[in-house]
Amino acid sequence: MPIERIAILGTGLIGSSVGMALRQQGFTGTIVGWDRDPAQAATALRLEAITVIAEDPHTAAAQSDLILLGGPVFSILEWLEQLAPLLKANQLVTDVGSVKNALCSQANRLYNHPDKPGFLPGHPMAGKEVGGASNADGDLFQGAVWLFTECPNSNGMSAEARTKADEWRTWVQKIGCRILDLDPERHDVLCAWVSHLPQFVSTALSALLEDKFPDDEALRSIGGRALREMTRLGASPYSMWRDIAHTNTEAVSASLFALEQRLAHLRENLKTPELRDEFELANRFRLGNPHKP
Amino acid sequence: MPIERIAILGTGLIGSSVGMALRQQGFTGTIVGWDRDPAQAATALRLEAITVIAEDPHTAAAQSDLILLGGPVFSILEWLEQLAPLLKANQLVTDVGSVKNALCSQANRLYNHPDKPGFLPGHPMAGKEVGGASNADGDLFQGAVWLFTECPNSNGMSAEARTKADEWRTWVQKIGCRILDLDPERHDVLCAWVSHLPQFVSTALSALLEDKFPDDEALRSIGGRALREMTRLGASPYSMWRDIAHTNTEAVSASLFALEQRLAHLRENLKTPELRDEFELANRFRLGNPHKP
Repeated sequence: MPIERIAILGTGLIGSSVGMALRQQGFTGTIVGWDRDPAQAATALRLEAITVIAEDPHTAAAQSDLILLGGPVFSILEWLEQLAPLLKANQLVTDVGSVKNALCSQANRLYNHPDKPGFLPGHPMAGKEVGGASNADGDLFQGAVWLFTECPNSNGMSAEARTKADEWRTWVQKIGCRILDLDPERHDVLCAWVSHLPQFVSTALSALLEDKFPDDEALRSIGGRALREMTRLGASPYSMWRDIAHTNTEAVSASLFALEQRLAHLRENLKTPELRDEFELANRFRLGNPHKP
Repeated sequence: MPIERIAILGTGLIGSSVGMALRQQGFTGTIVGWDRDPAQAATALRLEAITVIAEDPHTAAAQSDLILLGGPVFSILEWLEQLAPLLKANQLVTDVGSVKNALCSQANRLYNHPDKPGFLPGHPMAGKEVGGASNADGDLFQGAVWLFTECPNSNGMSAEARTKADEWRTWVQKIGCRILDLDPERHDVLCAWVSHLPQFVSTALSALLEDKFPDDEALRSIGGRALREMTRLGASPYSMWRDIAHTNTEAVSASLFALEQRLAHLRENLKTPELRDEFELANRFRLGNPHKP
């Protein structure tokens, strides 16, 4: 009972890129797509990321073997709630959201019971600072890590849903990803540090520069690669990050606070030997580990 | 009286890259090089960034039309002091240091008087997170901005030194740079924001992650482009940045403090509409200006 029909709800950057990647790697079934913004779905269809646009997303989900939820975290939470009563125990829901704990809480009653659909939370560590189907790329996941965070209740998943979960893991590898399994809480903490903190630092730095030097041409011309990289994520859309800020608040807040403290420490030690220790630790993070990011 | 003989004191990444770039653009005179570390000078010679290694840097400087000072800021300050009594009024000293106010203070009595050599402070906005002649690149300056910050006393420069300064500006353009003139104080403030602040933020973030997750393989594997970019400068050498921290302390400190405040503001507003304002300002910095960095 292989996956022959996939519904992608949310055909933005990630949803559409998954569709394109699946096609490139030989998925020959149907991919039905839907997006709150009809233009996104139309672009996804034009790019052949989906084979057909769903007239009604609920019907499309009910008729699919696997339902992939894209879009911001709040929209994933909403779909989990809406779809549960419409799906059967042999169907699998998965997602590409950046926060996982909140999703497992939502799924706890509604999924992964013998008579309920399965839910396998997933999170590809790939993206761009610009969203939308028009930026989709079938090679986006080549070499990336795709995290899976089985929910605490995932043992209750039906055998048919489990088979689909295993097959979905195979597809994720086929589109170029290395799979890493984490528990949802550890996922949210690690992602706060390696993904959410960099985003909010880049946003704060970009906002600060815009505030302080709104029309300074010199500042803009002399900024080199360092500034470009440190502010690239300043272009990221609020709509996506609001949901992450709301659903991973504690971990994000802790990482921001730690960085504030660290910057203050560095500032107070610009002229002391402590500065050397900071550079040595930083050098070790970048150079001292064979798995350096 | 064109520039026929150039001395490069400090043949690391930037010094050697300048030598290679000059050659590529048709400079046919002699480039004599010297470095505190003989291996750097040997590499520069092998790369043909210099034509000959100086036996004695003071003699080499005394015999050159133009002396380019590379290396960390403190070493430039020291050369300015040591060379002044050895040079004639028709000779020009220039540099590639990242801080300018301290250099002009040092040069005030010693340069730019009718009987003293000329000094034109310069700063190419190009570099890498790894130093050394072995990383030199004759194309490093293509498309970069080269800042010049004439000292307050530069009107006192001899006519011959001024001619060399004009010729040096032409060479800087030939190797691919757009020239921007700033006064030294404004230079140090702008560079604190667009170059020094990004460096210290990247160092602090890298050091914090190394401290908190010293052997966490998962953290290292899931970090994607965002983490890679935000911590790239964590690899930068302390030796270079110590001098910048010491000579641009006030501006760097002010920019760090402002960012700490901004991060705290963002942290306190993860769940309020203020977060939208931060993203909108950040978006404007990255997307709203045709000269976006």
